[in-house]
Amino acid sequence: MGDSLATAELTRTERFLRACRGEPVDRPPVWLMRQAGRYLPEYRAAREGVTFLQACQDVERAVEISLQPLRLVGTEAVILFSDIFVPVLGMGVDLDFRPGPVIAEPIRTREQVEKLVVPDARAAVPYVFEILRRLRAALEPEAVPLLGFAGAPFTLAAYLVEGRGSKDFGTLKRMLYREPAVLRALLERLTEMTVDYLNAQIDAGAQAVQLFDTWAGLLGVAEYREWVLPTHQAIVRRLRRDRAPLILYVNGGAHVVDAMLESGADVLSLDWRVDFAAAARHVGRRAAVQGNLDPCALAAPPERIAAWVRELAEAGRAARGHVLNLGHGCLPETPAEGVRAFTAAARKLAQ
Amino acid sequence: MGDSLATAELTRTERFLRACRGEPVDRPPVWLMRQAGRYLPEYRAAREGVTFLQACQDVERAVEISLQPLRLVGTEAVILFSDIFVPVLGMGVDLDFRPGPVIAEPIRTREQVEKLVVPDARAAVPYVFEILRRLRAALEPEAVPLLGFAGAPFTLAAYLVEGRGSKDFGTLKRMLYREPAVLRALLERLTEMTVDYLNAQIDAGAQAVQLFDTWAGLLGVAEYREWVLPTHQAIVRRLRRDRAPLILYVNGGAHVVDAMLESGADVLSLDWRVDFAAAARHVGRRAAVQGNLDPCALAAPPERIAAWVRELAEAGRAARGHVLNLGHGCLPETPAEGVRAFTAAARKLAQ
Repeated sequence: MGDSLATAELTRTERFLRACRGEPVDRPPVWLMRQAGRYLPEYRAAREGVTFLQACQDVERAVEISLQPLRLVGTEAVILFSDIFVPVLGMGVDLDFRPGPVIAEPIRTREQVEKLVVPDARAAVPYVFEILRRLRAALEPEAVPLLGFAGAPFTLAAYLVEGRGSKDFGTLKRMLYREPAVLRALLERLTEMTVDYLNAQIDAGAQAVQLFDTWAGLLGVAEYREWVLPTHQAIVRRLRRDRAPLILYVNGGAHVVDAMLESGADVLSLDWRVDFAAAARHVGRRAAVQGNLDPCALAAPPERIAAWVRELAEAGRAARGHVLNLGHGCLPETPAEGVRAFTAAARKLAQ
Repeated sequence: MGDSLATAELTRTERFLRACRGEPVDRPPVWLMRQAGRYLPEYRAAREGVTFLQACQDVERAVEISLQPLRLVGTEAVILFSDIFVPVLGMGVDLDFRPGPVIAEPIRTREQVEKLVVPDARAAVPYVFEILRRLRAALEPEAVPLLGFAGAPFTLAAYLVEGRGSKDFGTLKRMLYREPAVLRALLERLTEMTVDYLNAQIDAGAQAVQLFDTWAGLLGVAEYREWVLPTHQAIVRRLRRDRAPLILYVNGGAHVVDAMLESGADVLSLDWRVDFAAAARHVGRRAAVQGNLDPCALAAPPERIAAWVRELAEAGRAARGHVLNLGHGCLPETPAEGVRAFTAAARKLAQ
């Protein structure tokens, strides 16, 4: 049976996994980063009366929140509702979500790094895997793909060293230039934790996983290659990618697309600032690409959103595969009708 | 007299202006963005007891602050101490500095845009030009170059629409997608104001001017070309560049270097995330470049800072000219000894 015949009957799971792996598809699949978020009234209702962390730990609630965008905005993949700092709870770090992570005692010394436990994720945060198992059971009959995710070591280290979010992460960068051995030890420990955590997610049913490096784009190219790329390469090497392709997202990473390529990730998730057509041509057969509409552009009229979707899909053909997505997560002020226009335009591509 | 002979006796002003214009020099000149800033105890002392705006309006004090880095950290150019929002005070906008600009009534409608006055800068903010005249008189005997500056229209519009600083400037971007005519009218008015303001600075003695587009890097390439590039081109066209070259800085602009080139600016000031060697080669004879050490890297040991300066100077030779600088302004936590190591290494390049 030829590919052109086979693709005519793809399930959402097949379309998604084929696009990630660079196999022929009828059209790009579509989902949105932070598709389960405050822009949905139903999300805000489900979050009422509980803290963010409680919502991540409450299996029923997290399953409900994860599934919301499937019916509400027509997404074609479901991603675990959680936070990149959830697995860090198992490392012996006293942290709070307000809503960003706030670390009671920021990690600044070798002694503190050595005290960090590399936990068995299955024992430390069992609810994460229970949420994934339930989601997989719910999605299997509909053949909708399930994604897991983790924060990348550099981004986790950025918060752990700084103590909280920051505009320029000056404390982290001072450590990088003044105490490189301490930062290296911290990144090694976080890489260990992340590999185990993502593999456990794959065991629990995640069919693809996304690695979010939110702050790595703050580094220049040389520093990125020295501090970030090796962590991505280690994760790519040790992940069970035969069972779940890896999507790598670097926020503000327009200057490091070449280094992202060298990670070996299956899919490069590109920030909205990246010229998608040029990047897809540049990447070519070496990887699939994901992206990359500016989430703010979902405020535009639906016909403009549809035109952008067609442009992105056309541009994405130059790469090995293409998953339609935003270039950053949905924002609280993103209009739900814009999200629906985005997924509807994707579904129309095959017609 | 050949250029090799002539460059042996360059004054700081000659070296700076020649580098901006792509004429032969013995070595790149050096200065630092936000070199007069909180990292200097002397700056903090001079700012005591007055608000930021008062310091900008107090001629004696602003002159003193502007000159501090010359003696204290060995910079080779002086830049006017002021704020990008100072000229906006003359437009009839009620704004406060806390310390970032906070707009009492954010500009969201065409009526509000039409009420904005395009002032005669000389009458609206006369102290700015008095500060420049005094600085020029103080610097002329020493042959140190004097820089003026302005915020670029898009960045001013970003604050005026949003009302204050923001992570993603969602309100501004919604206006861009939903009410493009209002944003276009606002940018036109701000461009008018900026041209007049910079030309008045040149008349008052500025020998070069820098345009700061702090937030333009938030746009994707297509949006940048539509909304930002035309404002830069209009300013380049109407500025008295025969009397003062224009330096264009776009924060987070690694993805728009080609569009920066098309502005026609004399010098492209590159963010620290840009691969400086690759960018200088790419720019070649089409422009001079400025940059681009990460300000956080000034926390490194002096010998590493010196090595980076040598690398940057070597890389900069591929462009038409090179001005050594950071890729972003000095931070409050920047060590003054790191700044001194940076300028000292620049001076050693000729030996």
